[in-house]
Amino acid sequence: MDENSATNGTHEVVLDVNRDVSRTTQASRSCVNVSFLQKLVAEVVGTYFLIFAGSASVVVNKNNNNVVTLPGISIVWGLVVMVLVYSVGHISGAHFNPAVTIAFASTKRFPLKQVPVYVVAQVVGSTLASGTLRLLFSGKEAQFSGTLPSGSNLQAFVIEFLITFFLMFVVSGVATDNRAIGELAGIAVGSTVLLNVMFAGPITGASMNPARSIGPAIVHKEYRGIWIYLVSPTLGAVAGAWVYNSIRYTDKPLREITKSASFLKGVASR
Amino acid sequence: MDENSATNGTHEVVLDVNRDVSRTTQASRSCVNVSFLQKLVAEVVGTYFLIFAGSASVVVNKNNNNVVTLPGISIVWGLVVMVLVYSVGHISGAHFNPAVTIAFASTKRFPLKQVPVYVVAQVVGSTLASGTLRLLFSGKEAQFSGTLPSGSNLQAFVIEFLITFFLMFVVSGVATDNRAIGELAGIAVGSTVLLNVMFAGPITGASMNPARSIGPAIVHKEYRGIWIYLVSPTLGAVAGAWVYNSIRYTDKPLREITKSASFLKGVASR
Amino acid sequence: MDENSATNGTHEVVLDVNRDVSRTTQASRSCVNVSFLQKLVAEVVGTYFLIFAGSASVVVNKNNNNVVTLPGISIVWGLVVMVLVYSVGHISGAHFNPAVTIAFASTKRFPLKQVPVYVVAQVVGSTLASGTLRLLFSGKEAQFSGTLPSGSNLQAFVIEFLITFFLMFVVSGVATDNRAIGELAGIAVGSTVLLNVMFAGPITGASMNPARSIGPAIVHKEYRGIWIYLVSPTLGAVAGAWVYNSIRYTDKPLREITKSASFLKGVASR
Amino acid sequence: MDENSATNGTHEVVLDVNRDVSRTTQASRSCVNVSFLQKLVAEVVGTYFLIFAGSASVVVNKNNNNVVTLPGISIVWGLVVMVLVYSVGHISGAHFNPAVTIAFASTKRFPLKQVPVYVVAQVVGSTLASGTLRLLFSGKEAQFSGTLPSGSNLQAFVIEFLITFFLMFVVSGVATDNRAIGELAGIAVGSTVLLNVMFAGPITGASMNPARSIGPAIVHKEYRGIWIYLVSPTLGAVAGAWVYNSIRYTDKPLREITKSASFLKGVASR
Repeated sequence: MDENSATNGTHEVVLDVNRDVSRTTQASRSCVNVSFLQKLVAEVVGTYFLIFAGSASVVVNKNNNNVVTLPGISIVWGLVVMVLVYSVGHISGAHFNPAVTIAFASTKRFPLKQVPVYVVAQVVGSTLASGTLRLLFSGKEAQFSGTLPSGSNLQAFVIEFLITFFLMFVVSGVATDNRAIGELAGIAVGSTVLLNVMFAGPITGASMNPARSIGPAIVHKEYRGIWIYLVSPTLGAVAGAWVYNSIRYTDKPLREITKSASFLKGVASR
Repeated sequence: MDENSATNGTHEVVLDVNRDVSRTTQASRSCVNVSFLQKLVAEVVGTYFLIFAGSASVVVNKNNNNVVTLPGISIVWGLVVMVLVYSVGHISGAHFNPAVTIAFASTKRFPLKQVPVYVVAQVVGSTLASGTLRLLFSGKEAQFSGTLPSGSNLQAFVIEFLITFFLMFVVSGVATDNRAIGELAGIAVGSTVLLNVMFAGPITGASMNPARSIGPAIVHKEYRGIWIYLVSPTLGAVAGAWVYNSIRYTDKPLREITKSASFLKGVASR
Repeated sequence: MDENSATNGTHEVVLDVNRDVSRTTQASRSCVNVSFLQKLVAEVVGTYFLIFAGSASVVVNKNNNNVVTLPGISIVWGLVVMVLVYSVGHISGAHFNPAVTIAFASTKRFPLKQVPVYVVAQVVGSTLASGTLRLLFSGKEAQFSGTLPSGSNLQAFVIEFLITFFLMFVVSGVATDNRAIGELAGIAVGSTVLLNVMFAGPITGASMNPARSIGPAIVHKEYRGIWIYLVSPTLGAVAGAWVYNSIRYTDKPLREITKSASFLKGVASR
Repeated sequence: MDENSATNGTHEVVLDVNRDVSRTTQASRSCVNVSFLQKLVAEVVGTYFLIFAGSASVVVNKNNNNVVTLPGISIVWGLVVMVLVYSVGHISGAHFNPAVTIAFASTKRFPLKQVPVYVVAQVVGSTLASGTLRLLFSGKEAQFSGTLPSGSNLQAFVIEFLITFFLMFVVSGVATDNRAIGELAGIAVGSTVLLNVMFAGPITGASMNPARSIGPAIVHKEYRGIWIYLVSPTLGAVAGAWVYNSIRYTDKPLREITKSASFLKGVASR
């Protein structure tokens, strides 16, 4: 944006939605000082509330005569993603999902060596959330809050692949392509999760997220079909990111792209 | 915007919602290089996910005791349109609908000779999505995912005409009139689809889109009433675009209008 | 904004949400040329689709075992208001409601002598929409699409007063106070309608709009309690506008306020 | 922003989402003149409509065979918060909630000595709204509109703590951190309330707000478990604000932060 930031040698990707040029420049500089630890705290807390709210809606629905309803559960999953993108997206990138982190790394939009730490943070957040729920609802109310295929494994695998492909395709479109509109990234990504849960929830639980499935599995010691939720969303997310890349503008200097508006690329690729 | 773009002789319509003038100018230039093939890929992939998500919500609802509910199905159709506008609107214009493409062409906002290729891409996307669904749900679960009138043909014809008129009227207002607000086009257009499905779904299936109806018809070999869904939405969309034109500002130089903010006019009129 | 517009002698209120100063200035000038007829067409067409979509959701719900549900009906009413604000708000101000038009006039934000023509346009749109519905659904399906109190007249009067007060209070806050955010006016106003219908629908039909009640009353010759829906929303809207005025910034020159961002004040106060 | 405002000695926090620098500067100056009384009126009126709409949805649902449904009730609570943030957020900060006011004061974002007056205004608004509802629905329809734990007190305490923590965490992220996006604060905060009510409503009533619980308690003289709703949300909100602070940018001069975009910090810290 200015000489300074062009020559400071980092490829920091920052939230670039401020209208005020001077403020943006300032933000670019201060962004370098955000400690990696803060990003990890944001991922743990974010994943915690994502899984807590979403899973609580499933458990409360089971314990109260389906009073939440499937649309209600879908709305909870979608909105919690949206509000977390807006509250910590500028800190950690708001992944909360190993499949998303790996897909970003596969397209060089996230540093490969930070992937393991991010994934650990996400799994920790998910497991803590599932444990909290397990403690809050005991006896007959201790419902399983994880994901299980309701049909065949193949059906579940294909659906998880497709919905995570779609999710990552949208994430790539709204959050990494600078012609698109950064401010609305949270609304678009949350809405994609919402609609995916609405139709895929009854079939696969609509995980789209290995961390979302492994947390409850650990707490409830229920590992049936868990491999589907580890493998399929990861493959789907990588495929979605790559297919989007094939239709992305390619004649733009890399420096411009890495500087572009993105909620979901909050970590420097040093 | 600057001398350069004023004299490069194209009437490229571009996403003009960036605040930063220099970035906008740059986008104007690079936009010329987007290959037509990329636009077609965006239309195929976009229509695929539009029809896959929407139809899956219908099929899953039928197979699971109406657990999705009509509001749930409406939300899926509306949100999938919205997120696709935000993720590929800047690439292909996010039509996904022959009626919309033809209506844009009728008001000279889309090149006439590109209409057939766009329509083919949309029908291919819809047919592939319907085929995927047919493979995923077999036996008793192989529900028809297309549209059929629940009442008389005349009733269905009038309702499809009115809801597509309304859709194209809104599209024209938010996406082609530069006084309106480009960023919110996806929200407005998606919401129009959502509300149309909510009341017209039980009567006509709320197609508004020949491609949405022809895909499942081909896969399930169910062509009853298909002519309604080919003719009525197309007439409705053209009428909606023309009525909006009658109340549009008319004292503005054409060059200004073609440059205006629009998600839905992504293709150059060369 | 510039010398020109400051001295052209009109108090035209225009959509002022463009970031680009030069474009705003241009819009200010061309706005003068929008014919009053175009505004009336926008009010007729807008009110037509508002009443058509909202009433259709009520009728379809009655004829199909409550498949739309009350939340579904509320969503239709809210979203149709929102999309119409975004598509014709910059043309006519998107009133569609005599109570809103009168309340604006009472605070000098709409020219008094244009009130009767606007009200006629709104009633015409509502009546045409109710007539269309009456023709589309015949025999046992010819449900009354208007409003009737389910409890006492006093209860209905108070509730209609309060919800229209709230609606106009929000309209005043988001659309006439230039510290607020013009772009989101459609979302805020539509959401207010949505939530009002959700809780007041079962008690009064949640009209908030004399035109919304008089159209179906004319078509179905059902005038019981109609005076409540003519008087109470009008009083509520005026009260809401005046209460908001009492907490509005008052130390700003009038010229600044009349120039401020507003979707809902599209008509010049000449 | 300019020399004037830098030297006028106040730390007024203002809505900073205008694009136009000159307008922002002007707003900064005029903001000083907003009387404290106007802020209190905004808090009373805002809390009144928040509690009236939300509680009415609960009462109407009980009296009409659950026609509103839990998703419907959640949508009312979420949207009413959102529209009030957009209509009076720039006046009073749109707290409507003693827990939020106290949490802001605990992080020095709200003047400590104004806390009692704000809390009184909020309790007055809530009590008036509960009284209005009590008068509107009499006899068998006089349902309790307040909050009661459906399970153990401990369960209710933990859940109220967690959901209010989450609410204040999001408020801090979107409304007090200037890297985040001020315009969307209303959508994010309203959505957080919506999703919290969806899963916590059946367990605790999802208060998150001492004023929301105390108003109906006073009117209905039903004080069982009221201490939970006074203590737990307050502790949760303070904790949420402090945890967010731990991941906030800290290398920015204080003056910049107090000037940053915020809907929810409308009162000067003199």
